[in-house]
Amino acid sequence: MERDRDKNRKILEKIRGIEIHEYKSGLSVEEAERLYGVKAIKLASNENPYGPTPKVYDALRNFSFFNVYPKEIPELKQALADYLGVEESRIVLGAGSDGVMDSIFKMFVDKGDEVIIPIPTFSYYHTLSSIYSARVINVERREDFGIDVDAILNAVSNKTKLIFICSPNNPTGNSERFEDVKAIVESVDCAVFIDEAYAEFADENLLKLSDYENVIISRTFSKAFGLANLRIGYAVMDEELVKYYKAVSPPFPVSTIAQLCALQCLGDLEYMRDCVEKIKAERERLFRELKKRGIKAFPSQANFLFTKSPIKASEFVLELIKRGVIVRDCSNFLGCDEFSVRVSVGKPEENDAFLRALDDLLANL
Amino acid sequence: MERDRDKNRKILEKIRGIEIHEYKSGLSVEEAERLYGVKAIKLASNENPYGPTPKVYDALRNFSFFNVYPKEIPELKQALADYLGVEESRIVLGAGSDGVMDSIFKMFVDKGDEVIIPIPTFSYYHTLSSIYSARVINVERREDFGIDVDAILNAVSNKTKLIFICSPNNPTGNSERFEDVKAIVESVDCAVFIDEAYAEFADENLLKLSDYENVIISRTFSKAFGLANLRIGYAVMDEELVKYYKAVSPPFPVSTIAQLCALQCLGDLEYMRDCVEKIKAERERLFRELKKRGIKAFPSQANFLFTKSPIKASEFVLELIKRGVIVRDCSNFLGCDEFSVRVSVGKPEENDAFLRALDDLLANL
Repeated sequence: MERDRDKNRKILEKIRGIEIHEYKSGLSVEEAERLYGVKAIKLASNENPYGPTPKVYDALRNFSFFNVYPKEIPELKQALADYLGVEESRIVLGAGSDGVMDSIFKMFVDKGDEVIIPIPTFSYYHTLSSIYSARVINVERREDFGIDVDAILNAVSNKTKLIFICSPNNPTGNSERFEDVKAIVESVDCAVFIDEAYAEFADENLLKLSDYENVIISRTFSKAFGLANLRIGYAVMDEELVKYYKAVSPPFPVSTIAQLCALQCLGDLEYMRDCVEKIKAERERLFRELKKRGIKAFPSQANFLFTKSPIKASEFVLELIKRGVIVRDCSNFLGCDEFSVRVSVGKPEENDAFLRALDDLLANL
Repeated sequence: MERDRDKNRKILEKIRGIEIHEYKSGLSVEEAERLYGVKAIKLASNENPYGPTPKVYDALRNFSFFNVYPKEIPELKQALADYLGVEESRIVLGAGSDGVMDSIFKMFVDKGDEVIIPIPTFSYYHTLSSIYSARVINVERREDFGIDVDAILNAVSNKTKLIFICSPNNPTGNSERFEDVKAIVESVDCAVFIDEAYAEFADENLLKLSDYENVIISRTFSKAFGLANLRIGYAVMDEELVKYYKAVSPPFPVSTIAQLCALQCLGDLEYMRDCVEKIKAERERLFRELKKRGIKAFPSQANFLFTKSPIKASEFVLELIKRGVIVRDCSNFLGCDEFSVRVSVGKPEENDAFLRALDDLLANL
C-alpha cells in the first residue's frame, strides 16, 4: 500500500509529547567489536563478573515448562522472606528493578505530579519520569555525594508523589546514612522509593525502613547474584501497597526460569557472599591503584568506582575501548561533569587489563 | 518501627485512582490442586500443549550469559523479518504481547484520552486502559462477533488515541475481515492496534495492514510457538513509530535466553506448523463433539472454542475442575453473558478427558 505522508504526520501528532532519548545501557562486547574491531573487556554495566552460582545450571537442565504462563513460585517468596527477614506478604516481584519501578510510577504518578531526584544518580529515574509526564525536581547532592536532607525537604510540595533514594548510589558509589533517609521518610507523606540494587556490596543497608508505610525498597538479582540477563527483581513494601502493586503489575512479569534460577541463588548464599568479598577486595585495590596514578576516585560501597578522568570522559572512554576495555562515560548523567567516569569492578585479571590500558593511555597524553 | 495508621492513610491517598482489579489469568494446575485437591488438565490459557520445538533445549544447554544484561540478537530480527516478509527496521520486541501493549499505551495514551474496544475481547485491554486512566468506549460486536465498522467509526472522537482489534478475537475465536479492518484504518487518524496473538491458527491474517502508518500489529511466541513462559512478543509498525516505541520501552525487555529460544522456534517452522495442524484438527473435532451434546460453540480460527454452558459459567467451570479439567469462565469479560466459557484445544487425550468430564457433568444435571 502506498504511504500517505499526511496520515503519517497525523499519527505522529497523536503521540504524546515524549522526548526521544532512549536509556543508554553500557556498550556490549559485541557492539564494541562491531564499532571498534576490538575484543574488549566490559567494565561498564556493574555486572557480576563471576556469574551466578553454578547451581542455576540445574534449574536450566530440569526446565520444561516453556509453553505454560509463569506463576509466582511460593518457595521463592519464602526464600526471599528468609533472606531479608521480612514477611512474605510484603514482597513483590518485578522484571528487574526497572520493572518494579515502572509499576511504582503506575501506582503513584499522574501527569504533572512531581518527583524528587537527588542528582547525580541512576538516569533511568529521569527516563521514567519523562515517560510518565512527571515534573522532575532535581536536587543537588552534597560534596561527598550524600543526599542533602534539607534541600530535599525544601523541594517537597503537595504535588510530590515520589522521592528517589539510590543507596549505594549509582554512579557515585556512596551509601546514604540511615538517619538521613529516616528523617526524610518521617517528614513527608509521599512515597519514598529506595533503590538498593547494590545493597549486597555495602556495609549497611536501609531495609529496616521498609517498615514505614510510605517506603518501597527495591532489590535485584541482577548485581551480586549475577542474573542480570533473566530480568528478576523484587521490592518490599507495606501490605496495603502490595495490593496496588499487584493491580498495576504486568500479569506475568517474571518467567518461571528466572524464578527457579533466583531460588538456586538464594539457596547458595555462600557463593554470592564469596563473589562479593572478592569484588570488594578488588574494589579497594583499584581505588588504591587509581590514587597512585593521580586519578581521583571516590570511596565506594558498590561494585564500581566513580572516577574523574584526566581528559574529557567521552575521549577517555573511547581511548580505553581502543585499548580493549569498556568503561562508562557518565558525563551525560544529570549533575555529572564532563570528566565523570564509572568503572565496574571485574575479576583481578580484568582490573589488571584496565590498569594496563589506563597506563598506556596516560603515557600517551 | 511502630505503624502510623494516619501516615498510612496519607500514602494511600497519594495513590492514583486505580481500581484494584488484577488481571485474572487462568487457574494453574498447581492452584487447582491446592484449591480442589485434583490433578487437573489445564485447557484455560490457550497454551500450546505440545510445547516448543525440542531445539529450544539446545539454546538452554549452551546458555551461560546469566550475568550480562540482554541485548537484541540481530539474528532474531533477521529471522522474524524473513518469517513475516517485512523489513527488520519495522520490528520491535517486547515482554510478550502484554509488554508490547504497555509500550503502546506509553506512546499514545494520556489521562482522559479515549480508546475504543470492541467487546467482548481480551480483558487486558481494559486493565491497561484503567491503569493509564484512559476513557474506554466499548463498542458491541455484531451477532457473529465480527467488529461493527460503522459503530466503531461513530465512536471515534478527536480524543480517540487507540482502537483495539483482536484477530482472531479472544475469547470468541473469529477472525476479522481484512476489508472491515482496512476500512477503519483508512478512515481514522488515530492508531489502530491489531493483536494477532493467534494468527498462526487462522486461515488469513491482517499483517499486510502494517504498511499503514497508523497500524501496529502485535504477535507473540506464547501461543503457536509454545514459549509463553519466556515472555517474548513482537510488533510490526511504521519506522517512525519504532523510534517512539524504543524511547518508551524498558531498556532490557527480553532476556537473551528467550531470544535464543525464539530463534530456535523460527528455525523449525515445520514443527510449529505441525502443532498448528494437529490443534486445528482437534479444534474441529471438539466443535463437532460439543454440537452433538447440544452445547453451543462458535466457529474458531484460534486454538480455543467459545461456548455457551448449559448452566452458569461459574458453576460449569467449577464442576469441570472437580472432574479434573480447567476451562475458562468468561462471564466477567465485558460484553459476555453469564454462560460464556472458553475451552483451549489440547492434545487429543486432553480433549477426550474434557469430553468425558463434560458427559459426566451433563448426566448429573
